[in-house]
Amino acid sequence: MVLHLVPRCSARLFWASPGWRRTYTQGASVGLKWLGCPRDTYRPLACRGYSSVSGSPEVMLTPERYPVQRLPFSTVSEEDLAAFERITPGRVITDPEQLEACNVDWLRALRGCSKVLLRPQTSEEVSQILRHCHKRNLAVNPQGGNTGMVGGSVPVFDEVILSTALMNQVISFHDVSGILVCQAGCVLEELSHYVQERDFIMPLDLGAKGSCHIGGNVATNAGGLRFLRYGSLRGTVLGLEVVLADGTILNCLTSLRKDNTGYDLKQLFIGSEGTLGIITAVSILCPPRPKAVNVAFLESPFYVLVETSGSSAGHDAEKLTNVLEKVLNSGLVSDGTMATDQRKVQMLWALRERITEALSHDGYVFKYDISLPVERLYDLVIDLRTRLGPRAKHVVGYGHLGDGNLHLNVTAEAFSQELLTALEPYVYAWTAEQRGSVSAEHGLGFKKKNVLGYSKPPVAVKLMQQLKALLDPKGILNPYKTLPAQA
Amino acid sequence: MVLHLVPRCSARLFWASPGWRRTYTQGASVGLKWLGCPRDTYRPLACRGYSSVSGSPEVMLTPERYPVQRLPFSTVSEEDLAAFERITPGRVITDPEQLEACNVDWLRALRGCSKVLLRPQTSEEVSQILRHCHKRNLAVNPQGGNTGMVGGSVPVFDEVILSTALMNQVISFHDVSGILVCQAGCVLEELSHYVQERDFIMPLDLGAKGSCHIGGNVATNAGGLRFLRYGSLRGTVLGLEVVLADGTILNCLTSLRKDNTGYDLKQLFIGSEGTLGIITAVSILCPPRPKAVNVAFLESPFYVLVETSGSSAGHDAEKLTNVLEKVLNSGLVSDGTMATDQRKVQMLWALRERITEALSHDGYVFKYDISLPVERLYDLVIDLRTRLGPRAKHVVGYGHLGDGNLHLNVTAEAFSQELLTALEPYVYAWTAEQRGSVSAEHGLGFKKKNVLGYSKPPVAVKLMQQLKALLDPKGILNPYKTLPAQA
Repeated sequence: MVLHLVPRCSARLFWASPGWRRTYTQGASVGLKWLGCPRDTYRPLACRGYSSVSGSPEVMLTPERYPVQRLPFSTVSEEDLAAFERITPGRVITDPEQLEACNVDWLRALRGCSKVLLRPQTSEEVSQILRHCHKRNLAVNPQGGNTGMVGGSVPVFDEVILSTALMNQVISFHDVSGILVCQAGCVLEELSHYVQERDFIMPLDLGAKGSCHIGGNVATNAGGLRFLRYGSLRGTVLGLEVVLADGTILNCLTSLRKDNTGYDLKQLFIGSEGTLGIITAVSILCPPRPKAVNVAFLESPFYVLVETSGSSAGHDAEKLTNVLEKVLNSGLVSDGTMATDQRKVQMLWALRERITEALSHDGYVFKYDISLPVERLYDLVIDLRTRLGPRAKHVVGYGHLGDGNLHLNVTAEAFSQELLTALEPYVYAWTAEQRGSVSAEHGLGFKKKNVLGYSKPPVAVKLMQQLKALLDPKGILNPYKTLPAQA
Repeated sequence: MVLHLVPRCSARLFWASPGWRRTYTQGASVGLKWLGCPRDTYRPLACRGYSSVSGSPEVMLTPERYPVQRLPFSTVSEEDLAAFERITPGRVITDPEQLEACNVDWLRALRGCSKVLLRPQTSEEVSQILRHCHKRNLAVNPQGGNTGMVGGSVPVFDEVILSTALMNQVISFHDVSGILVCQAGCVLEELSHYVQERDFIMPLDLGAKGSCHIGGNVATNAGGLRFLRYGSLRGTVLGLEVVLADGTILNCLTSLRKDNTGYDLKQLFIGSEGTLGIITAVSILCPPRPKAVNVAFLESPFYVLVETSGSSAGHDAEKLTNVLEKVLNSGLVSDGTMATDQRKVQMLWALRERITEALSHDGYVFKYDISLPVERLYDLVIDLRTRLGPRAKHVVGYGHLGDGNLHLNVTAEAFSQELLTALEPYVYAWTAEQRGSVSAEHGLGFKKKNVLGYSKPPVAVKLMQQLKALLDPKGILNPYKTLPAQA
């Protein structure tokens, strides 16, 4: 009954298994003192800051850990560097210490060995860079905030890193329609502040908002906390400007709600992780800022966090109270609490936001991000507990109930090949059997490209490879990512 | 101010120019007696019924009216008919009288001369038909309800007509998530009834709902009356099954809210008007059925019709009353009325729905469907009144204010080449100057394919042509439609 009602009003909703009650109610009992660092401060290296690596534990080079072979791209020569310097004067970075931050992903699992980072400021500069790289057969790794979960944003070998960090200008904002047009390197949180001052909100919100770039959000089709309420970027992104592999600028940067003139090319680039083109500007529809926010936290047998947002505090509280009375009376919910004041809302959300941190205390965490039909959402957790037995410390499922998105986490004292073998491909095959998605919102990037076949049939994979070949015949754009290597 | 508030709550909103007050208030004054036939009964020929053409005025063959040359496809032979009969036994229609209804579009402006209509029941049959046509180089015209506005659904020459009319089965409905999976030939209104009985609604609604097929809706990326509230089909369509030009079945018929595994191939087929593949099944997310509907009709200087839908009649009425008080007090609105009971709601909506009919009383109507930035939405109407002077009887603008979608109509006693020359390409060039869309929700089909360049740059048009060549190298799928002929 709750499940049925919730999508009508909730902006975001998470649930967690009872096995975790102990962990986070302990957190609550100590007044939600931060036991560790939230995600942004936890990142050892902020790419934009070019901070030193001294003190950080070494991350293995990707090809040393994963079976991957460098493709026959050219290597960057002195002549290439000189050409780059002409295109982006003073913004060609070759200092190894500065490059370190952009070669390593934020999960510190992958390390490329790129020798050059370019920081263009305009689409024209991106176009000139790609024209040069295309001619010279140089591979290119587009990079936004480098906050991806699947290794899509760092080079695997020595790809030229093209950072959008200096493409951070708002181009226009329409204060009637709420349509924002901006460069791809704008940081999500900064855009959020910008539109909130104008009484709108961004249609997406995620943990990495302090670092991630809107271009990266679009390139990875980011989901996040407002997905249930405001829908997918496929609906809210109205236009894109993209630079194609050969440097051609494709301008589809319109700000129209309706446009049925030909094929909707921008959809090709949403979620293609920089493998088909580099997004340089985004037009996006922002919803009006809600006037009222209510949060409820419910128990039995799962913890459920519900947030509603609307235009009238009184109406919204009344609706939520009605629902709560109904579910309490029916026995579906055993206990719960409601919050409207900001401090309590944040306390309740901290219970969700600190799960990742709590899990990390176990030692090593195997992480999966899958979509399932909502009635099967928890079955895999129960199944795995039986299958893994004492080999796992905890098998934990939480996620976005309204989206059918399960974040599955299996913890152990340390990494164990035996546990990995018990988990993979079992988890992927189980998901495939339910016609679920083996990557709900994180994408495939480098780490998951080989599991694509669990969620898409061979005909689809072949068509994707044909699209890649059409748009990037030399394969220079973000190689080794998203699609499995062709046989 | 209204414009700003409206998108927060309204399901649909239309506005009309004051010049039309006379016409439709007259209609209201006679108790909304129908002066003509509503759209569905106005259609002279229902394709599914194979009714006789006797009595209908003759429609010219398309190539006699438009400059178009038949491409070198094969013609249907006796052997082809025998092969079709093996694939779809008893469902190969060659009787000219029965074919008439499917050769002529519902606006009665276009007529093809197809000699055969096929009525498959399954995707496998569609696959076998296309495999045969591909091998034989036979052109194919996919047809749903044949309710399109731009001639996309009827053959131009002798293309094989492939009707989805018998592919009308609901495959599944999930009564918690509201996800409907059905065959492409389900009629929108029938699906609407089906999900309403289960306390959901379809995320789209349009005038042609009694005839149009969901597959056609998706193939044309239909907009309609719920667009502002529930968003584009690009967000609500979760999965598609498509048969490609060579008969390959592409199964992307998932029912997942989130799926970031590879490129989102289904987006290629949404809005591509049957030129890249034939949609055979659709998975679509239906919103919960609203419990309360309020309609307001406001005046000064435009007529504005606002409909809200929500979960609480009391709350919704209160919100709408607050807005109305505000706009009345501010002088932005001079007069208005509100309705919640079904009869009055329908009366108010009739004022909108009968505009097309009222216009037709003038004689001949030149029709345009464009998107513009909202603040420029009416400028073209004023501009055209000056430009056309007494050559036009009326220049009328109405449409979807929240979507920036203007339905521009210019009426005259009869068709006039002089008026057409004054209108085109002027209207398209004017729209292009505002970076608007020359086809907001109707698509390009046969009639508008040559104006694509006003809304999309050459780079985009070229990429569209490359996609067409990749997916349909022989060009057999819905030829002469959507894309301009290549130089």
